[in-house]
Amino acid sequence: MLKEADIIKTLQSAFAPISGVVGIGDDAAVLPFNETESYVVTKDILVEHRHFRLTTTDAASLAHKALHVNLSDVAAMGAEPLFVLLGIALPANSDEVWVSQFLGSFAEACKKQSLILVGGDTTASERDLFISVTVIGKAKMKNLKFRRGAKTGDILCVAGALGEAHAGLVALETNAQSLDAVKAKLLRPLALCAEGVWLGAEAGVTAMMDVSDGLVVDVGRLLQASKTGAVIDVEALQTSSNLAEASAKLSIDARECMLVGGEDYALLLTVSPSNFEKLAKDFQEKFGYALTKLGVITDRKKLELREGGNPFLFPYKPYSHFGEL
Amino acid sequence: MLKEADIIKTLQSAFAPISGVVGIGDDAAVLPFNETESYVVTKDILVEHRHFRLTTTDAASLAHKALHVNLSDVAAMGAEPLFVLLGIALPANSDEVWVSQFLGSFAEACKKQSLILVGGDTTASERDLFISVTVIGKAKMKNLKFRRGAKTGDILCVAGALGEAHAGLVALETNAQSLDAVKAKLLRPLALCAEGVWLGAEAGVTAMMDVSDGLVVDVGRLLQASKTGAVIDVEALQTSSNLAEASAKLSIDARECMLVGGEDYALLLTVSPSNFEKLAKDFQEKFGYALTKLGVITDRKKLELREGGNPFLFPYKPYSHFGEL
Repeated sequence: MLKEADIIKTLQSAFAPISGVVGIGDDAAVLPFNETESYVVTKDILVEHRHFRLTTTDAASLAHKALHVNLSDVAAMGAEPLFVLLGIALPANSDEVWVSQFLGSFAEACKKQSLILVGGDTTASERDLFISVTVIGKAKMKNLKFRRGAKTGDILCVAGALGEAHAGLVALETNAQSLDAVKAKLLRPLALCAEGVWLGAEAGVTAMMDVSDGLVVDVGRLLQASKTGAVIDVEALQTSSNLAEASAKLSIDARECMLVGGEDYALLLTVSPSNFEKLAKDFQEKFGYALTKLGVITDRKKLELREGGNPFLFPYKPYSHFGEL
Repeated sequence: MLKEADIIKTLQSAFAPISGVVGIGDDAAVLPFNETESYVVTKDILVEHRHFRLTTTDAASLAHKALHVNLSDVAAMGAEPLFVLLGIALPANSDEVWVSQFLGSFAEACKKQSLILVGGDTTASERDLFISVTVIGKAKMKNLKFRRGAKTGDILCVAGALGEAHAGLVALETNAQSLDAVKAKLLRPLALCAEGVWLGAEAGVTAMMDVSDGLVVDVGRLLQASKTGAVIDVEALQTSSNLAEASAKLSIDARECMLVGGEDYALLLTVSPSNFEKLAKDFQEKFGYALTKLGVITDRKKLELREGGNPFLFPYKPYSHFGEL
């Protein structure tokens, strides 16, 4: 079976880069708009049984999530989302009430972000439900952030809680009672749209992407794009109170959730060391929570995890849609 | 079960029109680019068992088709396609050779049209294969064509052969030998990209859309958008030699194929009567085949089919993804 990375590589190699257009391999594609601004375009797919189960999510949450996973990609580019296309393949026996709730929630979620739904495709599916959303955003070119900008010495940090969505997944899959906060984190993630636009305008931010497939996997992608390495101090990972409660009740490892649990839709960024202190302070004032400093970018082209100064032996299996990375 | 038209209506009613943006209900969404040009954006979905079977299509043909059904929507707006996003959900047991062939063919089909693949999403599916392509094109605003522009007295005509793809479907489903031309029409439709751009630049063309769900259904959509009616003379329908051969061999009604068979990816257009003669002549010279004149737009807000001047009783069942319209 081809790995996802191989597929991306195959397609990348088939198309030469062209001026003003940023193609495959970042959170979103970048297309020309005018001399100072660009459009960014994302496309994320949700597949029944793979990304969600209709037994554990309701129509309204699913619609919300289908939008926000795309908004997170737009935010990661430092762009403001503007337009949406909704593609949905509905099993022929879909319940009319379910479909109405899905559409109503999708429209509501768009309106909350002042997005305009401009098109899409509705079709029938034989068995599984498929959702494909495209979001088009806009940003000043100078504010666009890419995965490739991290420099040796930059501070690696994250905006948003890690691990909660994975705990929510375990809670849902094991039919655990209560733990509504982490379940909601999985079912109705809130893309960090305002944070993305704000961080985009900060020149001190050298690289940015969203954390959707687990921290370790996504940091690896940022390092590869930037041709750098990083040291992460696992003791710097902040266990939120929701995650602490869930990991205790579910007997799961909070650190594992934060390092390899997917679907966080947090923002991973690197910041020039000279800018970090002021930027972190301004961020805290603006958004009411702190950026979490995870470590530092190195020139060693690998990710080194440390605990108390010693190498941290990584016992976890990263998540992949294809079962391997 | 909600009808596709109801879904579109629900979503349309949730979003007020905004200046410079054309939303849900045409072949593609229109977004601002600059003072004289617009982007157009399409999204079409193909679902296994509903739009194709892996037993009757090969990977390369499927990739080609996934692109061209979107190109047809861009052509129908009078726009030139530029950028592509590919979303694909692959069953976990997908064959590596199959996937490579699909990707290679998709890249090749993009290059043939000078399109740049700028992004997308690759994921796993539990069972069925799902493809969602987005194409972004550009056109001068004054060249954009919509479904809503038909006026009473305009000539209704079509560019491209009707009915062949449906005959190809019957040939494949019944395991008929030979009939390669109509099979290819279904498996590897060629969007009328050059025709779309050329017709977009013709001021005499008052409305345009592509014929993908069968002529009668799509004419109905054009009439509804234009708040007009039409008279079509079914004797004006041109049975191509490929369709004639297939309908004889398969014992199917060629007229039914042309009126309700889907997946033609032809262009349906209306032309001011004063422009028609010259436009039809220029089209023939430019593309080497004739526009087929089907009938005329009326103010009676219904589609009237005639045969030899008499009402034509319509014995066929239109096709819908949802089994009804």
